[in-house]
Amino acid sequence: MTQTQMRNQDMHAIGVDIGGTKIAIGVVDAEGQILEQVRVETNPDDAASIDRAIADASNALARRYEIGAIGVAAAGFVSSDRTTMAFAPNIDWRDYPLGSKIAELVEADVPVVVENDANAAGWAEFRFGAGREARDMLMLTIGTGLGGAIVVDGNLVRGRWGVAAEVGHMRVVPHGHYCGCGHEGCWEKYASGSALVRDAKAAVVALPHLADRILELADGDRRKITGPAITRAAQEGDELAVSLVAKLGRWIGEGAASVAALLDPELVVVGGGVAAAGDLLLLPARAGFESALSALGHRPVARIELAEQGNEAGIVGAADLARR
Amino acid sequence: MTQTQMRNQDMHAIGVDIGGTKIAIGVVDAEGQILEQVRVETNPDDAASIDRAIADASNALARRYEIGAIGVAAAGFVSSDRTTMAFAPNIDWRDYPLGSKIAELVEADVPVVVENDANAAGWAEFRFGAGREARDMLMLTIGTGLGGAIVVDGNLVRGRWGVAAEVGHMRVVPHGHYCGCGHEGCWEKYASGSALVRDAKAAVVALPHLADRILELADGDRRKITGPAITRAAQEGDELAVSLVAKLGRWIGEGAASVAALLDPELVVVGGGVAAAGDLLLLPARAGFESALSALGHRPVARIELAEQGNEAGIVGAADLARR
Amino acid sequence: MTQTQMRNQDMHAIGVDIGGTKIAIGVVDAEGQILEQVRVETNPDDAASIDRAIADASNALARRYEIGAIGVAAAGFVSSDRTTMAFAPNIDWRDYPLGSKIAELVEADVPVVVENDANAAGWAEFRFGAGREARDMLMLTIGTGLGGAIVVDGNLVRGRWGVAAEVGHMRVVPHGHYCGCGHEGCWEKYASGSALVRDAKAAVVALPHLADRILELADGDRRKITGPAITRAAQEGDELAVSLVAKLGRWIGEGAASVAALLDPELVVVGGGVAAAGDLLLLPARAGFESALSALGHRPVARIELAEQGNEAGIVGAADLARR
Amino acid sequence: MTQTQMRNQDMHAIGVDIGGTKIAIGVVDAEGQILEQVRVETNPDDAASIDRAIADASNALARRYEIGAIGVAAAGFVSSDRTTMAFAPNIDWRDYPLGSKIAELVEADVPVVVENDANAAGWAEFRFGAGREARDMLMLTIGTGLGGAIVVDGNLVRGRWGVAAEVGHMRVVPHGHYCGCGHEGCWEKYASGSALVRDAKAAVVALPHLADRILELADGDRRKITGPAITRAAQEGDELAVSLVAKLGRWIGEGAASVAALLDPELVVVGGGVAAAGDLLLLPARAGFESALSALGHRPVARIELAEQGNEAGIVGAADLARR
Repeated sequence: MTQTQMRNQDMHAIGVDIGGTKIAIGVVDAEGQILEQVRVETNPDDAASIDRAIADASNALARRYEIGAIGVAAAGFVSSDRTTMAFAPNIDWRDYPLGSKIAELVEADVPVVVENDANAAGWAEFRFGAGREARDMLMLTIGTGLGGAIVVDGNLVRGRWGVAAEVGHMRVVPHGHYCGCGHEGCWEKYASGSALVRDAKAAVVALPHLADRILELADGDRRKITGPAITRAAQEGDELAVSLVAKLGRWIGEGAASVAALLDPELVVVGGGVAAAGDLLLLPARAGFESALSALGHRPVARIELAEQGNEAGIVGAADLARR
Repeated sequence: MTQTQMRNQDMHAIGVDIGGTKIAIGVVDAEGQILEQVRVETNPDDAASIDRAIADASNALARRYEIGAIGVAAAGFVSSDRTTMAFAPNIDWRDYPLGSKIAELVEADVPVVVENDANAAGWAEFRFGAGREARDMLMLTIGTGLGGAIVVDGNLVRGRWGVAAEVGHMRVVPHGHYCGCGHEGCWEKYASGSALVRDAKAAVVALPHLADRILELADGDRRKITGPAITRAAQEGDELAVSLVAKLGRWIGEGAASVAALLDPELVVVGGGVAAAGDLLLLPARAGFESALSALGHRPVARIELAEQGNEAGIVGAADLARR
Repeated sequence: MTQTQMRNQDMHAIGVDIGGTKIAIGVVDAEGQILEQVRVETNPDDAASIDRAIADASNALARRYEIGAIGVAAAGFVSSDRTTMAFAPNIDWRDYPLGSKIAELVEADVPVVVENDANAAGWAEFRFGAGREARDMLMLTIGTGLGGAIVVDGNLVRGRWGVAAEVGHMRVVPHGHYCGCGHEGCWEKYASGSALVRDAKAAVVALPHLADRILELADGDRRKITGPAITRAAQEGDELAVSLVAKLGRWIGEGAASVAALLDPELVVVGGGVAAAGDLLLLPARAGFESALSALGHRPVARIELAEQGNEAGIVGAADLARR
Repeated sequence: MTQTQMRNQDMHAIGVDIGGTKIAIGVVDAEGQILEQVRVETNPDDAASIDRAIADASNALARRYEIGAIGVAAAGFVSSDRTTMAFAPNIDWRDYPLGSKIAELVEADVPVVVENDANAAGWAEFRFGAGREARDMLMLTIGTGLGGAIVVDGNLVRGRWGVAAEVGHMRVVPHGHYCGCGHEGCWEKYASGSALVRDAKAAVVALPHLADRILELADGDRRKITGPAITRAAQEGDELAVSLVAKLGRWIGEGAASVAALLDPELVVVGGGVAAAGDLLLLPARAGFESALSALGHRPVARIELAEQGNEAGIVGAADLARR
């Protein structure tokens, strides 16, 4: 395939990150720097308009930069050949050939590859962020849910059908919390911002005498408790908030130890909103990891570090993956 | 490295499987057939004698076959560069440079690589057995414990420090059964022959009115219950035995679903002694897998099949890995 | 206390069952038969009107029947001296002296005692229903939640502060489902009609290929799945529905075995809406109980039976308890 | 029955505590004081000799004290009518009419009643020890296993078949640790001296860098770790030992919260060998209890206190129960 030959890891590439309400499109150089970036609105109900918006922006950028590939990242299941959105939660894609649809509209003869957004973000971290020295890495993106990416021996793991690294759905508790996926006990029901908020709401009922500060930050309304408020209370030293963040950290670490039994990574990178809690989260995560890690003493303990790439990780990772 | 160039996937290679009491050494062709095999006794307390025995047998075989590489498989932790036994449970290897020790004694100038024995056996299955059509595979070897091997995109996963695929130590039950590794709730305490026997012994106490046949096969002595006897009783249709084997199968399947959330394999291969139970084990394993699998409906359900390679899998896999 | 002497277990008594929207008041004879019954609307926001309504109806009934006591049952926490509603979920009672408030308005000089409604219903079952031959009994009322009553050596267990028999909040799964009480893993999150519906909704997502009939009975809308519909599908033989009801039954039985370790009852009575499933529920409940019961072989296995008393159990039990 | 009339709660009674290797027999007054006590050796293989030894000692004591009843406590299952040892773990009693066997040999015409030893000890605590002000109490005797006694409304709970208060076999973890009773996840596998030792042995493997002091107290041999040594290390401030004792305390408290959901006691008394850890155990137990207690805020939090009665609790309790 001649397109493959044209791909060059040293060339610029365009990275696209399709969110629920807008699309970010940027030119990324070989060092992971974004040279220029644009944003356009998304209409999730109009798949063709998304294709068109991406192509238009790419064509405009390609007039000013020499690009070698286009990488498109979106939430959902991507076929393992990187061409098709098998399913997306927010946009009406069902086995939608996103790559070729965009390629038809792009003027330059460059490959267009599709990647899962968490994979793209994890890849950016691996290549240019906290994992740039690593070879085997687990990325955990802890927001509303728990997403992630897995890098084994320098390669992104996509799985046979493109559905690998659904780390949040590893089961950690039999008969545990209900998950939107239809199962019980998924890791993301214990290691996510939603879990943190849910635990805080429960603690207000179960341990009301400890919940004053958390409630205060929620205007006295248990339903208004948010993750950032819990983090803030924890940073102030509020006992309940500290224990809630630490509990979240323990679950991150203990679950990561199960992954380590399978994959033996050297590094676990923690990103997403809850990473703002810093050491309040990281120290319990490391303690939980070490306490649950098999073969301790027969290998170094993998490091657990915060992500370094910011919101543009999806663009950067998608662009870089497209070059490969 | 010129040795690398000499390796040829089409050449014969020698595979070595170092067990607790004997060493099996064979010449393996490019199709995974063993052309000739010898066995020698092991003295686990004398590491140098093991090196010598392997070299002697290899030299003898190399006079009759043109070989391109030697692969050595043993239980324990192998460095990720495939040269060193970091730790072994049965032989007194601690950071022992097994590969170079043997290479010094081997007359031919061929690479000698070291692999974990479960990885080698899993690789044989992947290349020449139940997984020969697959690209992404999970091997589960269910004997006294639960070992395994992981193949991602056609490559064996060794991990950053060679300790990947310790599948039996993925935690499946918080606060669950004690494991020899010092932790609680490891998968192998639920999905192994030992778990089957332990559950049977417990059932004799908890449900004595159902345990007649199992006890009879153990000469009336609860302590003498064995895995094969439970399997036999199950095959006869004994209600308790069937339920015990099915419970084991469920744990295999449900745990494999957690692995699938991470790695999205197309195939899970079940080997080891309990595989003799056949469909009594496989059907519950498949049901358990499907009931716990995330993204069902968005990907095919990975197949769960019995291993096809027999006791020589270690030799075959070690030889084949050495060619790479 | 002369009132105590006036109480006579052979006399008629008035039983009152205060629900969320109406009050049922009846005259109950010594054999637990309701001789006459009236119903009046409740205004849950007007506690005084409830007192008045009960007193008015009681006074009217007391003109036609000779009564020895009045028993009042309501949802909530009742003080252990049977005088005060410490807390109620639906009515604004906080340490409300319900007994004396009503007694002030009642013309006859008879004792007025307050009981928790689940306790009253369980007592009716114990005295006149499935438990009439028993001495030690566990009542499980399985509706939206899981309520109950405990009878030890012929006496209702109220606890030191009147909060005993909150059986639904015994923890059965560490880190398990969130409960409205603020904790995780409460028994009622596994053994209740809500759990059944929740599990069915989850199964529609996790096992869509098995959910046709359940979805059909919910007009194709997962959110409309109801307990009675699942029961109906199970009675028709639908595989998924049968397994869901059986799972519920297992949790009932296994949890009851934990209670039996503490209290050694001879009988477990299952009432509430899900009891309509009959043997589809009872047989798995019995199997689960037996499989988890300690000291099996050293005592008979307690029977698990359906409740016999209907909706009037609260009236009957309250009246009978008031006579004591 | 005239014997019943003869029983007098103000009279002296003889209490007998049958252990595995010796029998303790004492005269106990109405305030729970032991006036005189003797000990004789037991031959567990000769039931008749045990009857005789008890009768001889009782006859001798009865010549010097006026006694109203004899209470005999032993490990095992006692019939609920307090006459028969249904089963004993250490002595070959199977449905053995221990009470009448002894009564035949006793010269005085006094009732002889049989009680479970943990019940007797708990009763002594309730009447004369930490529970003397209480009405509803849970006794936990934490030694090798976890035994207990339950007092509801001032009465000892024996259950329908005398097998109540087997608190150690309440299940706290589905699929949890194997128990000698044939089940998984029994409370005593988490809240007992054996659990403490087992956890310490596991920690030596899993967290070797923290285990120096515990190992040192075991002469460097993991197998020699004992409960008292862990307690001692904890009292010295050793981090791992403190955390192990605290974990034990948490399980005590969290399990007690499940009991409280059923029985609403005002007091939990902790006795047995591990009670020596004092606040290192009690504070985590109280924290665990409060964190898992339902209806917090609607009732006082039950107190958790150490037992006050010592090794003679069995004698005292058996004597006192015999007077009733």
